[in-house]
Amino acid sequence: MGRPRTPLLDRERITTTALQLVDEQGDFSVPQIAKRLGAQTGSVYHHVDGRDGIVELLRERVASAIDPKTLDETPWDRALEAWARSYRAAFAAHPKAIPLLMTSPVRAPRVLEQYERAVTLLLDADFAPSDVMPLIIALENLVLGSALDLSAPETMWVLTESTPTPKLAKALEAVGEGRADRSFNLGLAALLNHARTLRTAEA
Amino acid sequence: MGRPRTPLLDRERITTTALQLVDEQGDFSVPQIAKRLGAQTGSVYHHVDGRDGIVELLRERVASAIDPKTLDETPWDRALEAWARSYRAAFAAHPKAIPLLMTSPVRAPRVLEQYERAVTLLLDADFAPSDVMPLIIALENLVLGSALDLSAPETMWVLTESTPTPKLAKALEAVGEGRADRSFNLGLAALLNHARTLRTAEA
Repeated sequence: MGRPRTPLLDRERITTTALQLVDEQGDFSVPQIAKRLGAQTGSVYHHVDGRDGIVELLRERVASAIDPKTLDETPWDRALEAWARSYRAAFAAHPKAIPLLMTSPVRAPRVLEQYERAVTLLLDADFAPSDVMPLIIALENLVLGSALDLSAPETMWVLTESTPTPKLAKALEAVGEGRADRSFNLGLAALLNHARTLRTAEA
Repeated sequence: MGRPRTPLLDRERITTTALQLVDEQGDFSVPQIAKRLGAQTGSVYHHVDGRDGIVELLRERVASAIDPKTLDETPWDRALEAWARSYRAAFAAHPKAIPLLMTSPVRAPRVLEQYERAVTLLLDADFAPSDVMPLIIALENLVLGSALDLSAPETMWVLTESTPTPKLAKALEAVGEGRADRSFNLGLAALLNHARTLRTAEA
């Protein structure tokens, strides 16, 4: 068929281009990807399982930055904490991808495998099966909310004399720099402590 | 100047149009607003304090759905819980606005006043000033992550035989329907319990 030796299109390049578009504008279209790669839209579809397939390639690419060894740590709460920190860092690198990935069903095999490992960690630690997904999802909501917060400006509250907010000013001064990390640490400690009490109550 | 009696442009209409655009595409531009309102881009700028001003009008509009009476409830933990629930509902109605609003500095007077009230609630409940913003921000990260999760499909994990995930299947079956609400309730309980221990430690 006269194909070039270095193919213009492959799944890796399609994923990289889709992620560039999402980083810029929070979304992508298949024609946009085709245009950037100098290809026809139909040719892009030839390599992937539709637009949804590209979303799953994006999910695998972003999630590949989560250190998989975290889930092997012991005990379970140390593993969960390390996973949450690595998860936050991976998504903080692509904040505009968060809404897209949070609202599309998870089909990516490697990401499903990561959920399987996290679930196994908690079941092996004797959590009630009905508590496992609520705990993981609450952790993810905190992690992804915090990953978005990491891309916020350091000065998030702009106080002016026309709107007197003396208590807010006092609280902001007391927290100083690094409010995003301090807030994440507080939320993570809260979830881990709560998980410990759930596990004790069930044991 | 021959102005029509019903002005084509006012801040309310600009805000409504910007919110429509954000609900559709997660962002807006001033020329897009002008086009939808049949006006010149320069005329839009005549009514608002630049693009940032429109973001703050959006913030006030979305946050106006948060019930302000929640922060008057007693004791403080009941107020914080009611505020968090109302906050989540307000932002779940506009999930695509969440990244935009989370990553732009807060200048809107009515929203700053709401932070002032939340901070005052916690200072009056004897929290250490340095704990107040981390607690509020951790709560917001959970609330906004969960608001995004509410707009996710009910079947968020699509399991297939080609990727065996028996533990994930078991955990999903155990949680049943309403996983988003159950996860939010778990996270909220965790944060409130943790806040109670912080307060006791400081008292």
